[in-house]
Amino acid sequence: MDSHTVFAPRGAKTEVEEGLDFAPKFDANGLIAALAMDAVTREPLMLAYMNEESLRRTLELGEAVYWSRSRQEYWHKGATSGHTQRIVEIRTDCDQDALILLVEQAGAGACHTGRSSCFYRKVVAGDGASATKLEWIGSGKSFDPADVYGKP
Amino acid sequence: MDSHTVFAPRGAKTEVEEGLDFAPKFDANGLIAALAMDAVTREPLMLAYMNEESLRRTLELGEAVYWSRSRQEYWHKGATSGHTQRIVEIRTDCDQDALILLVEQAGAGACHTGRSSCFYRKVVAGDGASATKLEWIGSGKSFDPADVYGKP
Repeated sequence: MDSHTVFAPRGAKTEVEEGLDFAPKFDANGLIAALAMDAVTREPLMLAYMNEESLRRTLELGEAVYWSRSRQEYWHKGATSGHTQRIVEIRTDCDQDALILLVEQAGAGACHTGRSSCFYRKVVAGDGASATKLEWIGSGKSFDPADVYGKP
Repeated sequence: MDSHTVFAPRGAKTEVEEGLDFAPKFDANGLIAALAMDAVTREPLMLAYMNEESLRRTLELGEAVYWSRSRQEYWHKGATSGHTQRIVEIRTDCDQDALILLVEQAGAGACHTGRSSCFYRKVVAGDGASATKLEWIGSGKSFDPADVYGKP
């Protein structure tokens, strides 16, 4: 892919916080955190990372393209599963080192485990003597990952 | 602070994804990303990071305590401004390396710039010839940072 999207250089703090130049800050590994939310329900779906080129591709394609830290490769979400994320809006924060993607999630869900969201458990604090645990939230699995990804 | 909250050791992939032990994964810098959202409106407020001890303090205090990467210190949100974040629910994702904080935001807002949310701008893609820009969203400043933080 031949991408041309241009970002601004990082300016002074005031420019970054109060200006309208988009100057995303990538960390020491060249990454920026991106939280995808359902644009309609506001359900948080997944948190992943983008490098500069995957952010460019996301903007040009209009679908979320992350950088897979585990596989060290571009990760066009849904390329395998069909569960693409159409970009409705991208927001950035005061210091421009984080992104919110408001998306229209295609297919049965965002999570490779077969659920609509990756955030399917909540934390339940322990009582000091016992360990902190998790509890299920959401409606369980909405698809069979084996069917979608072709492996168990 | 004397904190006692205990987390589980990281198990195999299946345990981490399909189990109910809370075994948060901290990155090479000892940090986990935490996105705070308004529990009622589902407005994304800010994205910050926690280390293991700040996550413990958050669970025990019932208010968000981050780790400030810039200041390299614990950051009890609202300790200076009064704009604390009462924890309503904490969610974690499939591989337990990200957190969503559903919070009740006290005071006029979450952002040190004086706005209710740090995500007060959206990205507007350029046309190939021009740079990608930002546009304001939200209702502008809800408090004067100089009043709250005592400096301009």
